[in-house]
Order: sequence, then C-alpha cells, then structure tokens
Amino acid sequence: MDSIKGVKEPVESDVESFFSKAPPLKDRDKLFEKLKGFIDRVVRSSENGKPVRVVCVTSGGTTVPLEQRCVRYIDNFSSGNRGAASTECFVKAGYAVIFLYRWGSCQPYCRYLPQDSFLDFFEIAEDSTIKVSESHDVVVKRSISEYRKAVEGGMLLKLPFTTIFEYLQILQMVALSMDCLKSLGMFYLAAAVSDFYVPWENMAKHKIQSAEGPLDMRLTQVPKMLSVMRKDWAPAAFCISFKLETDPDILLQKADTAMRKYGMHVVVANELATYKSEVTVVTRCGKTKVCSRAKDHDLEMELVDILVEQHSLHQEV
Amino acid sequence: MDSIKGVKEPVESDVESFFSKAPPLKDRDKLFEKLKGFIDRVVRSSENGKPVRVVCVTSGGTTVPLEQRCVRYIDNFSSGNRGAASTECFVKAGYAVIFLYRWGSCQPYCRYLPQDSFLDFFEIAEDSTIKVSESHDVVVKRSISEYRKAVEGGMLLKLPFTTIFEYLQILQMVALSMDCLKSLGMFYLAAAVSDFYVPWENMAKHKIQSAEGPLDMRLTQVPKMLSVMRKDWAPAAFCISFKLETDPDILLQKADTAMRKYGMHVVVANELATYKSEVTVVTRCGKTKVCSRAKDHDLEMELVDILVEQHSLHQEV
Repeated sequence: MDSIKGVKEPVESDVESFFSKAPPLKDRDKLFEKLKGFIDRVVRSSENGKPVRVVCVTSGGTTVPLEQRCVRYIDNFSSGNRGAASTECFVKAGYAVIFLYRWGSCQPYCRYLPQDSFLDFFEIAEDSTIKVSESHDVVVKRSISEYRKAVEGGMLLKLPFTTIFEYLQILQMVALSMDCLKSLGMFYLAAAVSDFYVPWENMAKHKIQSAEGPLDMRLTQVPKMLSVMRKDWAPAAFCISFKLETDPDILLQKADTAMRKYGMHVVVANELATYKSEVTVVTRCGKTKVCSRAKDHDLEMELVDILVEQHSLHQEV
Repeated sequence: MDSIKGVKEPVESDVESFFSKAPPLKDRDKLFEKLKGFIDRVVRSSENGKPVRVVCVTSGGTTVPLEQRCVRYIDNFSSGNRGAASTECFVKAGYAVIFLYRWGSCQPYCRYLPQDSFLDFFEIAEDSTIKVSESHDVVVKRSISEYRKAVEGGMLLKLPFTTIFEYLQILQMVALSMDCLKSLGMFYLAAAVSDFYVPWENMAKHKIQSAEGPLDMRLTQVPKMLSVMRKDWAPAAFCISFKLETDPDILLQKADTAMRKYGMHVVVANELATYKSEVTVVTRCGKTKVCSRAKDHDLEMELVDILVEQHSLHQEV
C-alpha cells in the first residue's frame, strides 16, 4: 500500500456496506436483460468477423440526496459534453459503446443542436407543415442519420442514472457483464462522481426544516470503487479515469496518484478553467498534452485516437 | 412580530449583507434594459386600452455553490413543470409574463414534446428533407405557434438563473421594476428556493479535497426575502408563494405561517408525493383544494383561474 498522506485504501467492508445499504435499483432485471442483450450481440458479431471492442463511457455528474424523500441534493457540475463527444468518436472508431449518462445531460449526436429553446429551430411552412429552419437543416440531418445508424447497428446503448447510488450499482452491473470480453473491454470513466455522500440510514426522512438556524451536515466519503473495478469486477479491461481539479498545482500529482493507487492504465487530467481546450493524458510511460486546434474544434477525436492506440497495446500484453 | 417558535423575522442587515456579498450578476445592465423594455411596452399598451396585468412566474430550483470555482453545489429538486404550465395559463388569461426560470428546467410550450431524446421525433423524408414524425406533428405545431404568438406579442419574457445569488438579485430587479404597475402586478413564486447557503466569503476557493475523511459543512440560512418583497420592493403587488413539504402533517400549518409571517396574499400548499395531482390554495378567507380531473390533466388551469379572480379582488381593495 502506498503511503500517500490521507489517501485510504478502500476497505472491502466499506464497499459492501455501500451496496448493501443503497436504495435498490428500480427495474434492475429489465436493465440487466437490456445490457446482456447488447453484449451478447457484440460477442456474436465478433465470432463472425473482426473482434468488436466495447467501451463503457460514463458521463455527467452524480447526485447525492440529502433527504430520503428527496427535495435537496448535492450535485457535481458536468455538462456531459466530453462523454457525449467521446461516444461519437468511439462509435466512429468501431467500438460498441455503453453510454452511462446522467439523466438530462448532453447526449451524443445532439451536441450541435440548440438546447435551451429548440422551438426556435422549427418553422411552419406555407403549406402549414412543420419544417426545420434552413440554418439548422444540415446539422440536424447529420445528427439524425448518425444517431439512427449507431442505435440500429447495435453500437450504442444508453443507460441513464441520477444518484450516486444508481450510478455505482449500474456501473458494477456493466463491469461484471463486460468481464467476459476480457481485454476487448474498456472503461472511460468521464462522469463526475461524488466523493461524499449521506448514507441512506443517516438521511433525514423528510425535508430538512429551515426554521432552526444554520444547518450542520456531515458527509461520508464514497468508497473509491476504481480499485474494486480493476481487481474484482473486470480485471482484464482497459481502464481510463478522469481527474478534474481547479488548482493546477495539484492536478498532475493527483493524476499520478490515481493511476498508481487505483491501478488505472490511463488518467486524463483536466483543469476546470481550461478543460474544454486542453487535457493531459497520463500513462505509466509519460504524459501527453492534447489541445483543441481551434475555438470550435473538439479535442475528443485526438484523445480517443490516443486511447484506442493504448488499448491496442494493452490487448497485446 | 408573531411568536412562532423558531421562525425568525428577517433582519434587515442579513438581507443587505446577502446582496452586498453575493457575486455580482453578469450582464446586469443588459438584463435591466431588457426588463425595462418589456414593462414599458406593457405600460404603453395599457394606456391605449384595457390595463394589462403582469405576473412574474418563478420556476425551477436554485443551486447553492459549495466552492467559488464551482464543481459541487446543492440543488433543489424541481422540474419546473408547474411554472411552465402556469405561464401558458397566465398568457391565455391575458397576462404579460416574466418567466424567471432555472436554466435547463421545463419551458412553456415545450412540455408535451419528448425531452430526453428529441432526435426521435424527426424523420428524413424520401426527398431527404427533415420532417417531424406524424405522431408528434400536432403537438409540435401547436407548441410553435403558441410560443411564437406569446413572444412576438410581447406577452412573454424569459429570464434564466442558476444559483441562489442570481435568482435573488434578478427577483429584486424584477420586483423593483414592477413596482410602478402597483396592484396590476403579481408574483407567482413557484421556484424551489434554497433555504441554506454558503456565504461567498466562507466558501472554499478550490475543489474540496476528498482525501481527508468525512466532510463537515455549516450552511447559513438564506434570509427570507418574501417579507422584504412585500414591504419594500413591490408593496402593492399581489403575492403568491408556494410551500412544498414531504410531511403532510405540517404542510397546512406551514402554509398558514408563511401567509401571516411574510404577508403573502395566497400560499399554494403541495406535498411531494401528490403535488402533480393536488394542491391546496390557502387565502386569508379559507382553503380550497384543487385536483387534476384525470391522469394527464394539468391542474394549473383551475389554479390560475382562482388566482386571477383573487387578483381582481385585490385590485378592487
């Protein structure tokens, strides 16, 4: 065990206790069937040709409810743009993608569509049919056809989550289901996962009342599941985690720590102020900076290219 | 001052201190011009005919940042559906509506459109133009034409917020701007406003680190602005606030308290478990239950009808 100050090795009982006390997933069986169907199809098509690689892309932030009948929650800032953009790149690179995303966050193939007021891109034509306004026509057309192709080709499965409890339970289910793929599997863990939570049994049952002065809260650390994933859930898969910090002075050190501590193959380090235009890919062999080349240019294509190459190296080992 | 246990009268210095220490609004001047333009147009058109009533509808939840460079925040659950639905009803009833909404929450005239995957309601026709699939055609057409009519007729102004700091600063600006309307003005405060916050100067500058065990947080009460609004910002306006509780046993008592304590004309009481199908309108003269008549029937039309009538009574006083 490394002796990095303050970083605790996750204790197995913390992990077990997290799962045993979490509110159970709704529609667990249905979800499992869907997932199994998707992976089975990939495995079958791999048997008939070139092996298909599968990546689980996690995206968006998890919430931490503060009340059992939840009115208030802690949320992690994340638009989900990175996960959505990367999903498109992975599909393009021939991967089947399990997109595990925060409900309401950015979706693949929708990123260029106006979000807030999408009524504005419709027009009512003279013959009183509705049409998409000319200025959005190209973008909408490309979005629809690429989206349909990915879904109908069995290359994209979308699974939503909201709370930290849902996220970790679904991630575990996905990882255990992907274990059969061995080194063909990849995890691209871009979701912004809560570090702290309120255990269900400590949670206020009703809405916390505001009449009684300041509110003191004690949040418990979420057990770090990354090492459990590497050790137990899908040990042969290729694992990439993300590190976001606001303080550039500690970022690369924290990325290094995460890699060694949790056995990640790659850590993608980003800083809040510049995460759209610059990331650093940290591997065991060194660091590579990836920058976007222009204002509207997404860096995810280069990032995914590097990771696909690293994944190939991992498979050869 | 009422002697209700634990409910403090807001101290003027709390309110002043909240505003003086809040991070300043971006584009304050532009926002003010927009608002002034909207209200001036309403006043001018009132002078040439029947007086136009104006309602400020607040909608969606406010966030409380936990860090200055914000990665984490506390959020209040609210889809914004009630505010969006009510806005449509107020426009129909002839009101000009200032819709003060949480960025990303439910929008008027968009409620019946599929949200999560709206790519699904497009089709590419044989001549390779994009069209709206037949199943959504009617609903999309009605949405577009009603939305356009409201905006182009100067009956709808949409102002977004995210944090509690933005919300309260914009609300104050709206209230001060609407004061000239006297009793023609109405406030329909359906937003889920945070009761607790972290004052800017107490906030961690950088992302809170998770390495050091549990996290203890002390949250300060947000000063209750309702009585300030009634007393100072827009004393002649008709004011409706909302009370959401998870515990039915305290709901009506809390609604009564809010009415007396903050000088509200009406409090709409709802319970988390049933808020979609049932609310209770609490006035100084009594309580009226409003229920939705069928599964897909919105209760907002009846609710708004009652409030419009109450507003007329208020104007006559």
